[in-house]
Amino acid sequence: MSIRVTIWNEFKHELDEKHAASKLYPEGIHQAIAKALGTEVDFEIRTATLDQPEHGLTDEVLNQTDVLIWWGHKVHHEVSDAIVDKVINRVMCGMGFIALHSAHFSKPFIRLMGTTCTLKYRDANENERLWIIEPNHPIAKGLGEYIDIPCEEMYGERFDIPTPETLVMVGWFKGGEVFRSGCCYTRGLGKVFYFQPGHEAYPVYYQPEIQTVLKNAVRWAKAERIVDEVECVHVDKPLEQLV
Amino acid sequence: MSIRVTIWNEFKHELDEKHAASKLYPEGIHQAIAKALGTEVDFEIRTATLDQPEHGLTDEVLNQTDVLIWWGHKVHHEVSDAIVDKVINRVMCGMGFIALHSAHFSKPFIRLMGTTCTLKYRDANENERLWIIEPNHPIAKGLGEYIDIPCEEMYGERFDIPTPETLVMVGWFKGGEVFRSGCCYTRGLGKVFYFQPGHEAYPVYYQPEIQTVLKNAVRWAKAERIVDEVECVHVDKPLEQLV
Amino acid sequence: MSIRVTIWNEFKHELDEKHAASKLYPEGIHQAIAKALGTEVDFEIRTATLDQPEHGLTDEVLNQTDVLIWWGHKVHHEVSDAIVDKVINRVMCGMGFIALHSAHFSKPFIRLMGTTCTLKYRDANENERLWIIEPNHPIAKGLGEYIDIPCEEMYGERFDIPTPETLVMVGWFKGGEVFRSGCCYTRGLGKVFYFQPGHEAYPVYYQPEIQTVLKNAVRWAKAERIVDEVECVHVDKPLEQLV
Amino acid sequence: MSIRVTIWNEFKHELDEKHAASKLYPEGIHQAIAKALGTEVDFEIRTATLDQPEHGLTDEVLNQTDVLIWWGHKVHHEVSDAIVDKVINRVMCGMGFIALHSAHFSKPFIRLMGTTCTLKYRDANENERLWIIEPNHPIAKGLGEYIDIPCEEMYGERFDIPTPETLVMVGWFKGGEVFRSGCCYTRGLGKVFYFQPGHEAYPVYYQPEIQTVLKNAVRWAKAERIVDEVECVHVDKPLEQLV
Repeated sequence: MSIRVTIWNEFKHELDEKHAASKLYPEGIHQAIAKALGTEVDFEIRTATLDQPEHGLTDEVLNQTDVLIWWGHKVHHEVSDAIVDKVINRVMCGMGFIALHSAHFSKPFIRLMGTTCTLKYRDANENERLWIIEPNHPIAKGLGEYIDIPCEEMYGERFDIPTPETLVMVGWFKGGEVFRSGCCYTRGLGKVFYFQPGHEAYPVYYQPEIQTVLKNAVRWAKAERIVDEVECVHVDKPLEQLV
Repeated sequence: MSIRVTIWNEFKHELDEKHAASKLYPEGIHQAIAKALGTEVDFEIRTATLDQPEHGLTDEVLNQTDVLIWWGHKVHHEVSDAIVDKVINRVMCGMGFIALHSAHFSKPFIRLMGTTCTLKYRDANENERLWIIEPNHPIAKGLGEYIDIPCEEMYGERFDIPTPETLVMVGWFKGGEVFRSGCCYTRGLGKVFYFQPGHEAYPVYYQPEIQTVLKNAVRWAKAERIVDEVECVHVDKPLEQLV
Repeated sequence: MSIRVTIWNEFKHELDEKHAASKLYPEGIHQAIAKALGTEVDFEIRTATLDQPEHGLTDEVLNQTDVLIWWGHKVHHEVSDAIVDKVINRVMCGMGFIALHSAHFSKPFIRLMGTTCTLKYRDANENERLWIIEPNHPIAKGLGEYIDIPCEEMYGERFDIPTPETLVMVGWFKGGEVFRSGCCYTRGLGKVFYFQPGHEAYPVYYQPEIQTVLKNAVRWAKAERIVDEVECVHVDKPLEQLV
Repeated sequence: MSIRVTIWNEFKHELDEKHAASKLYPEGIHQAIAKALGTEVDFEIRTATLDQPEHGLTDEVLNQTDVLIWWGHKVHHEVSDAIVDKVINRVMCGMGFIALHSAHFSKPFIRLMGTTCTLKYRDANENERLWIIEPNHPIAKGLGEYIDIPCEEMYGERFDIPTPETLVMVGWFKGGEVFRSGCCYTRGLGKVFYFQPGHEAYPVYYQPEIQTVLKNAVRWAKAERIVDEVECVHVDKPLEQLV
């Protein structure tokens, strides 16, 4: 059975020709990720961006999405609350949600976490080493003990998130910080994965191990079932006899 | 050092003279809880209700609250989003938050959980037995193996919440259901406790063991420190030398 | 890729012709489970019992086992510590381990938990209802909201186990108790599942939903990789230059 | 009410005059820790060492211990299994257990974890920065954002432990590794804390912030109640009527 993946991208930095991202990702980060995931024959891949009608996330698209990947940074506030409501509702029903890098501050991720999602940051050309803490977790499949990222923006603790259900990866930064870089959650019937790498000014999403993580995360986040609605249920007739 | 507790109540059922709550809690559930907590000499207790200006939760009150207890049921939607924002912000900064019974569906609790908080329910005069799963948790202090509640509204699984950090209690209902009835979370710097008992039509908050849980929960939810703000921090100067 | 399953059974009750188990499971509980799992074409199924040489768990068998299912009750103490060491070692390397019912008190399960694994019990012909708490967990695949077991031995809280990583099921018993009946853990590189149903005097393992849980649990417990050894590693050369 | 603390030390390195520990801790690590904890007027402090009869952990001592601190390294295997059984039994009944540094490989800690507790290590005069992940956890009381340790043995992931219930601290090492350095567990009725700092060749336990962690950890690990025994209980009479 195929997995229907929608890759959402704010798609702003890449259109700014003064920004490094315009060189690195001329067609947008979403297209680079789409291409990376494209090796998987059972993935049906769509992309969507902020400036499309309904940010590209129409009911039809969402209803046909098993896993939604989200990259945003500059203009989180421009994402419509009505669309965020629909995304959240779909996660509650079982859609997987993968928040990448600066999507820690996106509206849907903050809503799913219930915390501020604040962190420390610094962009100083430093290297990161992503340690795999749970080597037998599905998201770690095919990886070694760590992933070396030659250049990454530093994201440091304290990262204000709820304790992950599974902490798959911890990042080490040359400048002296650590970060919970790969965090798994269940929210409603949906699975949520936060993955820290992916600053727009570095070619992180072209790195094969990073692409492996994304592919694994999509497979992990695909739910057994997606329902139409989650509601309170009044139980008229008790299961056991009440005198 | 004293603990400053604010007990918030929707205070609607009790004012409806046709409702059993008007007989059981003539001064309101908040006053019954306030009286119960009043045995603790180090608790400074305030109450607040929906119909007060700013729902009784002015900046001054919130800034002087270590732990906020919340009871609501009928009119969750009448709670102003602006006040909810302030409550959430204060939890992020370290205020404890205790959601009682039907507050599972209150705006602040849903915001803190990031899920639908839906459940099953039935009001059929049945008994509940609240099993203590973690006998050495601070919230279980002074309790036996279980608490028998002669009459309680049934709340049943699946309760759509994130996996609790600590599941302190599980409820058994005569009619055949179970419920995660005592659930601990950390959200931001604040501690959150959901406690299922307390249907307005039964005298649950007059029961001594239930009062013990409330007192314990207040002590547990009191933070070591409450800060003024939680923000992202740009780290100009790395802690380690970067070449 | 196939999954190599070994079903271990103490196999004592079934050989006692005065015991109900001898009628219910004339060939042994292990054979009943083997038959149930036999529908899965990618499962390679073996059985092993206490009275076989090395309890049927030779190095060769263990080294060819991806998931070990364990049923024991009467004579946990007769299981050799040397074999338990080998089982534990294989779990550390990635073998899945599924402890059924009274295997809560088996040597390997207690070793993996690090707790006493004590509980309450009563055998009184009562019914159990197994509530699914995490409907989208792989072990819940294909199940409804609950499983009704017409007759089961009561196992009640407090069950002295570490907090499960995922609590998939909670049992309700007619006589008034609850139980954490489906509990997931990671230990070393291996996945561990405890599943409470399966008293030898009732035909629980013939029930289709129970068989579904067993099949799902085997698939879930199969590791991405099983290694030969887990050791401390001295890192001679640091990954980063130390001055 | 006072807290009865017993500090156990292998006490071998310090007696070897060629070892740096003999200069740093001439009276033993246990005495240095005892002195540090001695500022707390409600702590009743004892020490015990390997070469004492019963390793200093007689029934009388254990029965009067609320929290046991454990430091060992060279001769874990010389610790008698009978004494380990008693220690574990006391933890099951509610005694707190704090494992320091190389006690990751001590018999009682491995028993409590149920895993290999293997890790990476290197002794190369490097600095560690201990990041506080949960700033409002009782063990973090009075600490800043991190603790700088000028010189520490590197302990690196993957650390083979069960997922901590609360991960309070993560260590950063100059040479490129990270480590889950402050890990909380519940085992039986007892609380368990693993704290990574404290290589015998560096003056780590003289550092005030490290001493603060030890004091906080003792207060956190003190149980509400310690029982005499934890047993399976046969429930003769059901709580609810069974027909």
